[in-house]
Amino acid sequence: MSENLSKDAFLGGKLHLLQPKSGYRAGVDPVLLAATVDARAGDRVLDLGCGVGAAALCLGARVPGLVLTGVERQPVYADLARRNGGAAFEVVTADIADLPLHIRERQFDHVLANPPYYKRSDSRAARDLTREAALGEETPLADWIKTAAKRLAPKGHAHFIHRVERLPEILTEMGKRLGSIEVLPLSPRAGRMPELVIVRGRKNGRGAFKLHAPLVLHEGQRHEKDGDSYVPVVKAVLRDGAALTF
Amino acid sequence: MSENLSKDAFLGGKLHLLQPKSGYRAGVDPVLLAATVDARAGDRVLDLGCGVGAAALCLGARVPGLVLTGVERQPVYADLARRNGGAAFEVVTADIADLPLHIRERQFDHVLANPPYYKRSDSRAARDLTREAALGEETPLADWIKTAAKRLAPKGHAHFIHRVERLPEILTEMGKRLGSIEVLPLSPRAGRMPELVIVRGRKNGRGAFKLHAPLVLHEGQRHEKDGDSYVPVVKAVLRDGAALTF
Repeated sequence: MSENLSKDAFLGGKLHLLQPKSGYRAGVDPVLLAATVDARAGDRVLDLGCGVGAAALCLGARVPGLVLTGVERQPVYADLARRNGGAAFEVVTADIADLPLHIRERQFDHVLANPPYYKRSDSRAARDLTREAALGEETPLADWIKTAAKRLAPKGHAHFIHRVERLPEILTEMGKRLGSIEVLPLSPRAGRMPELVIVRGRKNGRGAFKLHAPLVLHEGQRHEKDGDSYVPVVKAVLRDGAALTF
Repeated sequence: MSENLSKDAFLGGKLHLLQPKSGYRAGVDPVLLAATVDARAGDRVLDLGCGVGAAALCLGARVPGLVLTGVERQPVYADLARRNGGAAFEVVTADIADLPLHIRERQFDHVLANPPYYKRSDSRAARDLTREAALGEETPLADWIKTAAKRLAPKGHAHFIHRVERLPEILTEMGKRLGSIEVLPLSPRAGRMPELVIVRGRKNGRGAFKLHAPLVLHEGQRHEKDGDSYVPVVKAVLRDGAALTF
């Protein structure tokens, strides 16, 4: 760990990921996203903006036999993703708006994305430059959705996690390209407004839009202490690598 | 009631509405919509597709001193709305996509709409012709939203209630014309998927999109009996004419 890296346990130790000690660090969001993906052995999975590989590798830890590909613009993170995933994880250093031909020629059964959460026009930049590139949105969200939709095989699914503020834009853009769109809001506590949404859309899907009841992440009405206060179904995802169905 | 009409009590008897015995009949939806409108004495209110006037007149029963206007395409319902509202409710028989000049020249602080819930391309027509015109969507939903936005005074609010399936379209269209958009999902029971949404948008609004925790309408986990099983906050709206804030 002489390179200012930490090695962090995910899924109760089923997975370990090298991450920079400073800069953007994967939290629970990509873990929850991966838990909602209903993939089967043999499925081709593309993680757009994969960072150190948290979403793709969490999914791979739960579902054996996947063909995992990640795209990451920042070489530091792409290199870590390669080290984290080994031979089973193909990581391409590229901008998602300018994918190399060998990716553009392929189709995927699932595309995952945990895009940067903040528009730089609305917020201050982070001091750390790699953190800034991971958190700040340089590529418009519409391009993430367009790229995901283009790379999907017929009947394939796109899976996004993002801040609830961006839901109208996600629905507008997904609505142009995907169907059977479903939203799972994630609320910090019962009765509180959701802060995040997981949005799933299907290529050639024809199902009606569905808004699910929010998944409440924490027990109790307020933050009592820093300890583990996750509800059982979330604990099962984070500690045991369980799936999260909706 | 020799005209095949019934006179029905709303808001615990604060309001009585003449309605056709057969055909479209106002339920709880316009009552809930009206309860969410934060109007003040003197505000100008436009109810688009007002039917017999349920939304506008429920609002008027709670907030005194409003200037209430309704637009209704079907003469039968427009006439009933006039009888229900009396001199305090101006009802214009017109298509919302083709408003008369004297309405197009005016601005409103609040525009309410409870548009037809079903696209005729997706569903079977109702047998009763007036019911069909009230339930089936002839005017595209986008036109309802465009008309509402055009008629709003600066900083005025549009308030829509619709089936959750139409939320993406509502957000897309409102996003072009209004800001500070907020969604209140209405769920039949705790943990169940919401079936309806109340969507509010503000002319010149600049606030971030908000998705509220769902309002659960009924007590318990399932439909026990036909009796009154509304949760207290909904009961207060339906029986006592209370406001519903979000």
